[in-house]
Amino acid sequence: MPLADREELGRMTALDPDLAARLKRDPAGLLPAVVQQYDSGEVLMLAWMDDEALRRTLSTRRATYWSRSREQYWIKGETSGHHQYVKSVSLDCDGDTLLVRVDQVGPACHTGTRTCFTDELLAEKAEYAEKEDEL
Amino acid sequence: MPLADREELGRMTALDPDLAARLKRDPAGLLPAVVQQYDSGEVLMLAWMDDEALRRTLSTRRATYWSRSREQYWIKGETSGHHQYVKSVSLDCDGDTLLVRVDQVGPACHTGTRTCFTDELLAEKAEYAEKEDEL
Repeated sequence: MPLADREELGRMTALDPDLAARLKRDPAGLLPAVVQQYDSGEVLMLAWMDDEALRRTLSTRRATYWSRSREQYWIKGETSGHHQYVKSVSLDCDGDTLLVRVDQVGPACHTGTRTCFTDELLAEKAEYAEKEDEL
Repeated sequence: MPLADREELGRMTALDPDLAARLKRDPAGLLPAVVQQYDSGEVLMLAWMDDEALRRTLSTRRATYWSRSREQYWIKGETSGHHQYVKSVSLDCDGDTLLVRVDQVGPACHTGTRTCFTDELLAEKAEYAEKEDEL
């Protein structure tokens, strides 16, 4: 998105006050946003949103987050081309977590993998088919 | 799980030091854990783990979290019966988020719904099928 357009976004109105009142933010003013591929169900990544990032995401349908390390907004795919076209956004029962369902272009992860969750700590057990209390 | 068994768990060894060294925790020592139904792909909830909750989850294959409000460990389903049988656990590329794939018994949400993400802020547009840059 050209800089002029981003500045235009910055002049838009604030997040809907009724919605803002329902959000429970962490001490930094952020909510975790779980990002999921809308059709396959893959969990792609987790990012963070403040009110403004959520407002931009809802109004543009382009996933926009707050970068905690760079301390700035980032539109996913703006530099990589790996856009996230937002299909739906949901808030959880506690008002402290967002679920963003997207159509992800290419890899979601900056390492080049489809999802960020490739480091498996515990694999599925082939023989684990029972639900009895084994503990 | 009977109290005696939980106390037994408490006497077990600490989280694998190599794994512990890879975790990037928030200031409270926690990582967000995205919880997903392993077969349907539904994102059920988000909870929080410290090292000990992760160790218990990996060793027992019962999803165990740290409750930030109650300031104690909780085994999902221990009181509700809505157990989470852990199928796999993955760490993301930054080492700061977990993905826990489970077989959820009954509703995951304390409100009685299958998932915690029933409050839709932005619905899918039926006509939203194009990927062109419309902004």
